[in-house]
Amino acid sequence: MAYEFKVVRTVEFYETDMAGIVHYSNFFRYMESAEHGFFRSLGFSVVTDNTHQRVGWPRVHAECDYLQPLRFEDDVEIHLLVSEMKSKALSYVFRFRKLNAAPPVEVARGKLTVVCVAREADGKMKATPIPKAIADRIQVAPPEFLK
Amino acid sequence: MAYEFKVVRTVEFYETDMAGIVHYSNFFRYMESAEHGFFRSLGFSVVTDNTHQRVGWPRVHAECDYLQPLRFEDDVEIHLLVSEMKSKALSYVFRFRKLNAAPPVEVARGKLTVVCVAREADGKMKATPIPKAIADRIQVAPPEFLK
Amino acid sequence: MAYEFKVVRTVEFYETDMAGIVHYSNFFRYMESAEHGFFRSLGFSVVTDNTHQRVGWPRVHAECDYLQPLRFEDDVEIHLLVSEMKSKALSYVFRFRKLNAAPPVEVARGKLTVVCVAREADGKMKATPIPKAIADRIQVAPPEFLK
Amino acid sequence: MAYEFKVVRTVEFYETDMAGIVHYSNFFRYMESAEHGFFRSLGFSVVTDNTHQRVGWPRVHAECDYLQPLRFEDDVEIHLLVSEMKSKALSYVFRFRKLNAAPPVEVARGKLTVVCVAREADGKMKATPIPKAIADRIQVAPPEFLK
Repeated sequence: MAYEFKVVRTVEFYETDMAGIVHYSNFFRYMESAEHGFFRSLGFSVVTDNTHQRVGWPRVHAECDYLQPLRFEDDVEIHLLVSEMKSKALSYVFRFRKLNAAPPVEVARGKLTVVCVAREADGKMKATPIPKAIADRIQVAPPEFLK
Repeated sequence: MAYEFKVVRTVEFYETDMAGIVHYSNFFRYMESAEHGFFRSLGFSVVTDNTHQRVGWPRVHAECDYLQPLRFEDDVEIHLLVSEMKSKALSYVFRFRKLNAAPPVEVARGKLTVVCVAREADGKMKATPIPKAIADRIQVAPPEFLK
Repeated sequence: MAYEFKVVRTVEFYETDMAGIVHYSNFFRYMESAEHGFFRSLGFSVVTDNTHQRVGWPRVHAECDYLQPLRFEDDVEIHLLVSEMKSKALSYVFRFRKLNAAPPVEVARGKLTVVCVAREADGKMKATPIPKAIADRIQVAPPEFLK
Repeated sequence: MAYEFKVVRTVEFYETDMAGIVHYSNFFRYMESAEHGFFRSLGFSVVTDNTHQRVGWPRVHAECDYLQPLRFEDDVEIHLLVSEMKSKALSYVFRFRKLNAAPPVEVARGKLTVVCVAREADGKMKATPIPKAIADRIQVAPPEFLK
């Protein structure tokens, strides 16, 4: 049972903007990258799943609080924590830490809520319970981790 | 005195992802595009300003609720509304409407809070009051617009 | 019969990088945007076509020569010209002109070669002749336009 | 003396488009990422240099030939080779290989030419000789590597 995942990446030049910092929209790409790494760490892929049921995970809510800027070649750790789990939805909290600072410093905090959907016979996507094979491997992080 | 701005854009192929819809991070780019159009509509630029004071507008908070997907070649209207104005900060609400639907339908709603900063003598950015020339031209939208 | 298309766009903040200029990869997005506008100008969409045959247009070659930088809020015209037409492939030349200069100045020149493909019964994509309904509306630009 | 650099990355969801493959513009971002990794491998940064002279590396030419698509979660190796070195310019060749294929397969080949520039007293950028500290550590790849 897993409730967290960490990934470290180095800021790319093309992720910066003319203010010299990582464009704020890219924090949402970093979150997604950690989310997909989390799924892979469980043995699943968000796309090519092996649970006998093809599901998708559209976002219904995303947010980010920005505390300090990130710059080119900064090393940033994205720490995903499962903050809520419903039958058809998952919520995550993300903590962004700049590692090349002494001591490392939190630079942003994000949230993401995704819904599990499956394609109906008529081609439309509809919310569906998280497949058991996936749900059985995920739990909500202890409350002290989510403060 | 202005409290709103609207811009329409057509979804580009490169803004979609393999799920066939606009990637969720791009809604934050759409918001920023409307924010900058709003500034230009006031006679200012977020970058090359003409207020005798060079200021920047880093984001401190951004969020989005996703109601329906946007697809390639959809026409989307981004409607910016000023939701809060403090001496050193502005908050916006954004309504995304898909126009090529009958009737047009709201597909997402966003929020953005930005802080006005100026560069100090030591090169650091520090929160500063919004220049009067700008503040004098902006007001908060009527409450019935923000529901 | 059409051999050219022009579109003007204003450089977005999120298209710049920390060097203060449009990131070089974005010129390829601008080319594609003009390519798709060209198709729409012919009454087709690169995706939702109405030619009784569903085709795609993967790129096989792309290039760009950069002459001058583009900056935030510059107005750039992308001028597409059909430079070659084969039974299963199209080549385009793109001229990028910065309009907010006196006189307007060419800032970049690009090339793109795309192949027409259709999905086979086994799901694989295979090069296929350009549908007649499309091919009948396109011609190569006069040589003096392509110098 | 170095003439090559390799980096492996996993394709991100946000790098794909609605055709289900990596958007063609992203290959140019991959090239740049390898270029910057190459510089770091030499002990330099393209931005925060330590050569007593602040230089930049704007692109003058970029191109890519696409052989096969890349998809989400593919592992791609970007192999940079120095193909030409002039007093004020460097050219690179890039080979993209999909590693999660048996055997690994070349999926694209790119080229990039960058010019070394320095900021003049009047603020303008001008081509300048590559700093000796950098030039002394780079050589052109053997011809058999560049075929």
